[in-house]
Order: sequence, then C-alpha cells, then structure tokens
Amino acid sequence: MTRLAYLGPPGTFTEEAALRYKPDAQFLPFPSEAAVASAVESGMADEGVLAIENSLDGSVTRTLDVLIHESALAIRAELILPIEHCLIVPPGTTAEDVRVISSHPQALNQCRKFIERCFPNATEAAALSNSAAVDEMLKKQGGAAIGPARAAELHGAEILARGIQDNPHNKTRFVALGKTDGQPTGRDKTSIALSVAHDRPGTLVGVLHEFSDRAINLTKIESRPSREELGTYIFLLDLEGHRSEPAVAEALAAVREGALFFRMLGSYPRYDDARDP
Amino acid sequence: MTRLAYLGPPGTFTEEAALRYKPDAQFLPFPSEAAVASAVESGMADEGVLAIENSLDGSVTRTLDVLIHESALAIRAELILPIEHCLIVPPGTTAEDVRVISSHPQALNQCRKFIERCFPNATEAAALSNSAAVDEMLKKQGGAAIGPARAAELHGAEILARGIQDNPHNKTRFVALGKTDGQPTGRDKTSIALSVAHDRPGTLVGVLHEFSDRAINLTKIESRPSREELGTYIFLLDLEGHRSEPAVAEALAAVREGALFFRMLGSYPRYDDARDP
Repeated sequence: MTRLAYLGPPGTFTEEAALRYKPDAQFLPFPSEAAVASAVESGMADEGVLAIENSLDGSVTRTLDVLIHESALAIRAELILPIEHCLIVPPGTTAEDVRVISSHPQALNQCRKFIERCFPNATEAAALSNSAAVDEMLKKQGGAAIGPARAAELHGAEILARGIQDNPHNKTRFVALGKTDGQPTGRDKTSIALSVAHDRPGTLVGVLHEFSDRAINLTKIESRPSREELGTYIFLLDLEGHRSEPAVAEALAAVREGALFFRMLGSYPRYDDARDP
Repeated sequence: MTRLAYLGPPGTFTEEAALRYKPDAQFLPFPSEAAVASAVESGMADEGVLAIENSLDGSVTRTLDVLIHESALAIRAELILPIEHCLIVPPGTTAEDVRVISSHPQALNQCRKFIERCFPNATEAAALSNSAAVDEMLKKQGGAAIGPARAAELHGAEILARGIQDNPHNKTRFVALGKTDGQPTGRDKTSIALSVAHDRPGTLVGVLHEFSDRAINLTKIESRPSREELGTYIFLLDLEGHRSEPAVAEALAAVREGALFFRMLGSYPRYDDARDP
C-alpha cells in the first residue's frame, strides 16, 4: 500500500487530490510543503501530493521553492481538480441565521461576489485553512465557513450552497512527488527550472529555440525572481514529451549547456481532463 | 494636490508605498483592487497605488486582472519596497507575555522560522489584513501581531522585533495607475499583456524575437492561464525602453500584429533602488 503524504489538515482540497490520485493509499497529513517533501525524502512516505498552481491565483510559491531549492524529489504525476467552494454551516442552520463567514482569506476573495450579493450584512473572519474555518464555525452562533465539500463531511456539518466561487474556471493543478519521476506513456509532460544570464537580450530566446526548432510545444513558461539576487530570474518551463524521447533529450542537453542553473523536475503523464466525471 | 487612492486599510505596506510615492498627496484608502481602479477611472482620485508582485509570493493576481481585463488604466510609475515585518505588541508587553500571534496567513508564512524559533508555544491566528491583525491584537491578553512598522505607529502599539521575515530579499513591487502613462525619461520600462496561439511551437519565440532582434531587453516574462478558456495563456512582458522610442515602437507594432490579444499597460520610469535610504 502506498503511503501518501499531503499538505493537511484533512478536509482541504489537497486531501481531495490525494484521495483522487490513489484512493487506496494510506494518507499522511503534514503541516507544511517542506514537511511533505521531508517525509518522502526520509522514507516516511512513498509519495507526496502538493498544489503547484491555481488558475486564478497563479503558482504556489512554497511548492516551487521546495522543488527548485529544497529537495531532490521529482514530479511523477499531475492532477487538475476543479475548485468548488461550498458554504458550510452547523446542521439545521438556514441562510437567515448566518452572521459571520470565515475562511482562508484567499477563499473569501474567490467568493467575493456571492458573499456581497447573498450576505451583504455578514461579517468576514479569517482562518488559517479552509478546514480550520469549518472547525471554528461549528462553535459559533450564526457561523458559516467557506471550504470544500469534504470538510463539511469530515466535521459533520451541512452544505448550504455549492459552487459559490466567482469564477467557474477555478482549477488547481496538483503534483505527486517521489524519488523517481514517471515512466514514458506516450503522452507525457516534462518540467524543468533554469536560469540564464538575464542582462543580454536573446538569452531566453536561445533557450526557447532549442524547443521550437524541434517542434516541441511548451505548455507553460513562467519567470520567478531568484531568491538569491535581485534582478536574476528562474524560468519554469513545462513541455510536451518525456525526457527519454530523443528530440526532448537533445533539446534538454542543449538548454542545460547554456544555463547558469538547471534542474530537471521530472517527466510524468499528462493529466487528462476527460477522465473526470 | 494629487488625490491618491490605494488598497487600504491604513497601516498596510501599500499605504507605505503610497506615502513614499507622493508624500504630499491626499490619501484615499479603498477596500479592493477593483475599487482603487474605479476611483481613478471615475475621477474620484487622480492616481491609484497597488501591489503587483512580491519577490517571494509572485504576482498579485487581482491587480493583474484589473490591469488586463477590468480597466483601461495605464501604469505610470513603479516603486519597489523592502518588506520588513515587525512583531507588534500592546505597550509594555515583553516576549514572555506573548501567547497568540496573529496576521494575514501570508505574513505568518513569511515569518515561519522566526515564530518557530522564538515562540514555539504561541498559537497562530489568522486576520484579514496585517493592519486588522494589529487592531485585534490590542484587545487580547497575550496578543501579538505581525505587520509593518507603520501599523504599530497608527495603532499606538509597540514594536518588539523588526525584520523578522525569513528571507532578507522580501521585496514588493508597486505600480501607480492613472489615465495616462509616464513621459519618456531616457530610463524607462514598458509593460504589455498579450496572448498567442499556444498550440503551435514557436509562436512565443516569434514574439520574443521581435525584441531580441532589436536588442531590447526583457526584464520579466510570465504566463498566466487565461480566465476565458483552459489551455490558453496570457503573457505579461516587461521590457526596457519607452513605447515612444523607435525600436520599441517597431517591435510592439510587430508583436501586436501577430497576437490574438494585445494590451499596452504603459511606459514608466524604471524604479531606481539606489534612491532608497
């Protein structure tokens, strides 16, 4: 049985991703992204699940830092989950009872229009996680929380409203980390991180040419300020293909040669949205 | 006197940026990024100050959404501020009195090591903003808050520790928005947003060539998932030079022609770190 570490507590979207990834695993919640990585590196867990990017809020920088700087783990799978926020209340509560709505500030922001329209007089309260919000809400008269359906289930609370996020395209991409990356399946992606001399025009163009000249499509390109020095950037690239395919291997070798810093984050099967119900 | 809108409440880092940008302005706090933009568009304010990117946490996506999709405002100035978090307490409190540390979850994350080392037994509490944290903390026995020095000043609280963020390179870039962008100064930057057909290798390379062929340096490149359709991306590029310079104007015209979507975000003077004390 796979021992699967994830960023806890139970009842978060990351737990939902872990359950979807390997339903029969033994699930081990850890309190931080770095702790999940340490659990896998030390052998306490076989794999670890972390959120890496949200369609509205962008990259999860703590996950990127773990991947780029703080561990030698590889990405071996990806999952994309729609983020459906629910309004969660103690059993028997009706809409007119709701006085305080609590959640992580990011979740409150993602449900701004729903709150303004339906609960213009409710007070907002911040919580450290969506799951903690549900826990606290159950203790308060007139309390409600915003979080995933799974949190309501775990805490014995009721769902008053579903799909209350402002933007229907709210999705999060999760990755499973392990000591090795994925085997080729014929429909793979590869993620790399690199930095190039930034003060000369065209250095990044040279990198991208290695891929476009070989008809390799990039599915993501992002620049992040390096933690070491102001004005230097780390580029994160996702490309189509497995690192064992000849064209990809050639391009990666060329890019690695011209880079100041290069880290292979792993090859893994492309997540197929169509698998979702 | 310039009427300067900013993302409030008073006592946040954004207020600090607004004070630094135009110390003699009339300051108008607004509750959201969209509200700051509306204030400027409607003539209630002359300019608006918003955070656009943090060196640790990446882009401020709500500011980007306002710029790309929800307003016709232009960037007319940029400011880069070091983010120095302080541990703020009620007057007379000593370290051994501290039981609860509250702040916005992002600020708590940025000071993780300090909290673990110095206050291993303190409880963490979430707040909607750093400034709100200071306000709440003053009412609690054993309470402390993490936030900017300015928040302590405004609330009549004391600073127990300064510079408690884990990473010394924690900086935030702010932009001033207005109905027109900046005049050429000879040392300018230009920001654009665009999308290209993403399913063909090389479309982005073509865009970057327009700049590298003219020796125009890019200082930032970022891809964000488009809000409209999964799998399409919007690229945000910052480049050196003013849009009125011939080479820049030529490159921009060529890029605009090949783009599915193009938005000029403005030209403005490059912020000079050396101006800071």
